[in-house]
Amino acid sequence: MESFTFYNPTKVHFGKGMISMLGTELKKDGISKILMIAGGGSIRVSGAYDDLVKVLQDNGIDFIEGWGVRANPTLEKARELVKLAREHEIQAIIAIGGGSVIDTAKSVAAGFYLDDVWDIYSRKAMVKKALPLYTVLTLSATGSEMNGNAVLTNTETRQKWGTGSIHMYPRVTVIDPGYQFSLPPKQVVNGALDTIAHILEYYFVSVEAFTTLGINDSLQCTMIEMTDRILQDPADYMARASFAWTATLALNGLSGVGLKGGDWACHQIEHSFSALKPEIAHGAGLGVIFPAWIEYMAERDPKRFNRWAKNVWGVESISEAVKLFRDKIKSWGSAVSLRELGIKESDLPTLVELSMISDRIGGISRFSASDVEALLMLAL
Amino acid sequence: MESFTFYNPTKVHFGKGMISMLGTELKKDGISKILMIAGGGSIRVSGAYDDLVKVLQDNGIDFIEGWGVRANPTLEKARELVKLAREHEIQAIIAIGGGSVIDTAKSVAAGFYLDDVWDIYSRKAMVKKALPLYTVLTLSATGSEMNGNAVLTNTETRQKWGTGSIHMYPRVTVIDPGYQFSLPPKQVVNGALDTIAHILEYYFVSVEAFTTLGINDSLQCTMIEMTDRILQDPADYMARASFAWTATLALNGLSGVGLKGGDWACHQIEHSFSALKPEIAHGAGLGVIFPAWIEYMAERDPKRFNRWAKNVWGVESISEAVKLFRDKIKSWGSAVSLRELGIKESDLPTLVELSMISDRIGGISRFSASDVEALLMLAL
Repeated sequence: MESFTFYNPTKVHFGKGMISMLGTELKKDGISKILMIAGGGSIRVSGAYDDLVKVLQDNGIDFIEGWGVRANPTLEKARELVKLAREHEIQAIIAIGGGSVIDTAKSVAAGFYLDDVWDIYSRKAMVKKALPLYTVLTLSATGSEMNGNAVLTNTETRQKWGTGSIHMYPRVTVIDPGYQFSLPPKQVVNGALDTIAHILEYYFVSVEAFTTLGINDSLQCTMIEMTDRILQDPADYMARASFAWTATLALNGLSGVGLKGGDWACHQIEHSFSALKPEIAHGAGLGVIFPAWIEYMAERDPKRFNRWAKNVWGVESISEAVKLFRDKIKSWGSAVSLRELGIKESDLPTLVELSMISDRIGGISRFSASDVEALLMLAL
Repeated sequence: MESFTFYNPTKVHFGKGMISMLGTELKKDGISKILMIAGGGSIRVSGAYDDLVKVLQDNGIDFIEGWGVRANPTLEKARELVKLAREHEIQAIIAIGGGSVIDTAKSVAAGFYLDDVWDIYSRKAMVKKALPLYTVLTLSATGSEMNGNAVLTNTETRQKWGTGSIHMYPRVTVIDPGYQFSLPPKQVVNGALDTIAHILEYYFVSVEAFTTLGINDSLQCTMIEMTDRILQDPADYMARASFAWTATLALNGLSGVGLKGGDWACHQIEHSFSALKPEIAHGAGLGVIFPAWIEYMAERDPKRFNRWAKNVWGVESISEAVKLFRDKIKSWGSAVSLRELGIKESDLPTLVELSMISDRIGGISRFSASDVEALLMLAL
């Protein structure tokens, strides 16, 4: 186990109706005017929006609304919302939605005090302060609700880059699994794949971070079981609840303890998929790249992968575990090959080029362009 | 999974040499005069004391020393240290030691602002503020290094009672597993038993808090494996590190998520052992009472215990799992019966009486005096 610092100041209110706690929290923090950031409207279907408006009104909190954040959220939208926040002299931000909305809200919270928000993504500036951020999560996938990280896409430069700061942790997050009953199965599966990928990005870095690896075994197994349960019975509250909490824990720091910050090659390479084809969901792309990555890496260094094969898939052979992983993804109706995502062999050079925009790919071993190419061939 | 609020503001610096981070933290927080609270001297053997003194001196932080906290820490000692803290007008407290030292330090941090510190244990007063608290952990067992709880013994009234407050969380905790190399095996085992008991106090409350139960399976298995490893090779750093982090996670809130605050009958009843015989270590007492409690409860409601038998002990039968649990405790050289702790059948009425001082015993089902008696007979 490598040395680490663990610090997570986000307070989570979790469960049915817990959104009512938000009024108390905002009043306690002296917030009287807030910018609400939201996506395209699914929060009206789930009831989350109406509940939030009621909480704000009941507590006498003035709010303005900033709609229209989309999947793979853009720098342009964040800039537009920073402008809105400044015009209205708001004191805090509330994000209501999934990871894209929360990442945008984090960018606005920090960007409020910056010349341009892209500066923290391009490493030109550091976050020194940010507006207080509150979130109401309505789609479990990215873990953004309990960490200080965000990813934005600069559509001009086709860069999908990430940043992070202790000032960007949400102050309070409400997770009501009941808001997720109305999600289409595909979004549940994408959330599961994103969650599993977050765990796996850390998992293979060391075989000796025993506590963390044990937790990560259990988080993977729980996620797989809960996804099966939800697809079978979308009204299963207990499965929704454990799905949601597992997704949060997969990227709140816990799953990475003692694992040197993880590897993240698959996330970096997957970002090139959505740069090429924005319609590819992040989770779906990860479902294709991760099994291939394990195959590619296990050939070089099998010992790292034995625990995973045994504890998550109950088999001794890594290739058999990869097959079981792919079979599970298929059973959830998701892609296991680039072709199924609409990517052809002739697209690979572009994907390699887009992947190599990252300054460094891979933690366990550093990936060259030819590694990325070989990996993509395995995933084709 | 029941609704919950999760909030843990303690920052943990974990690993070899991480005590150096403490100087930076104290300076950042503007602390220039601090009260150091310590036990009987084992911190001189492990090197922790010398390291801390150097960090304080190097950072120009003035300190006074309050020694002499013992196992099952007393109200009297806490009162004495509150007096010392007031006399010297200190700004913060640093606890260096195990759970007893940290619990005492929490009491002093809160007691500094109270008429009498026992008021928060007897529910006469609430903690509204406390001095900032920093801890250097040198014995992993109680989890006190990352929670807001404390237990003190009022030797006059023979009450060993607990309290808790958000103001009593350590601000920063340093966990250097290297400080634990010099611990005698018995203390390692007592720490393991205390940790396992913390997990079990939550574990059986619900069978549907899937994420938490999965984590708790893994924490138990890791603790058992690490204890075996340390007893075999006390110099195994990776085992020490995972032991330490598991003990912290067993009582930092994570293991109790969605489990209604747990049951805690075994802790309450075990407290009567040390009230009767202060030489009985808390962990050793728990090693006797917990297997008996599982036997007693499983007769009434077996379904709660099936997961534990299967996932922790790899068997289908609960009674076989209890036997394996007791065998493991025996293999660690610890007691599995009250008689081995020096308690006779004739002591039971006193133990029942001391247990019933608690206003309520048990969460899953409420224990009457005759339940306690029957349980103690099983443990005899």
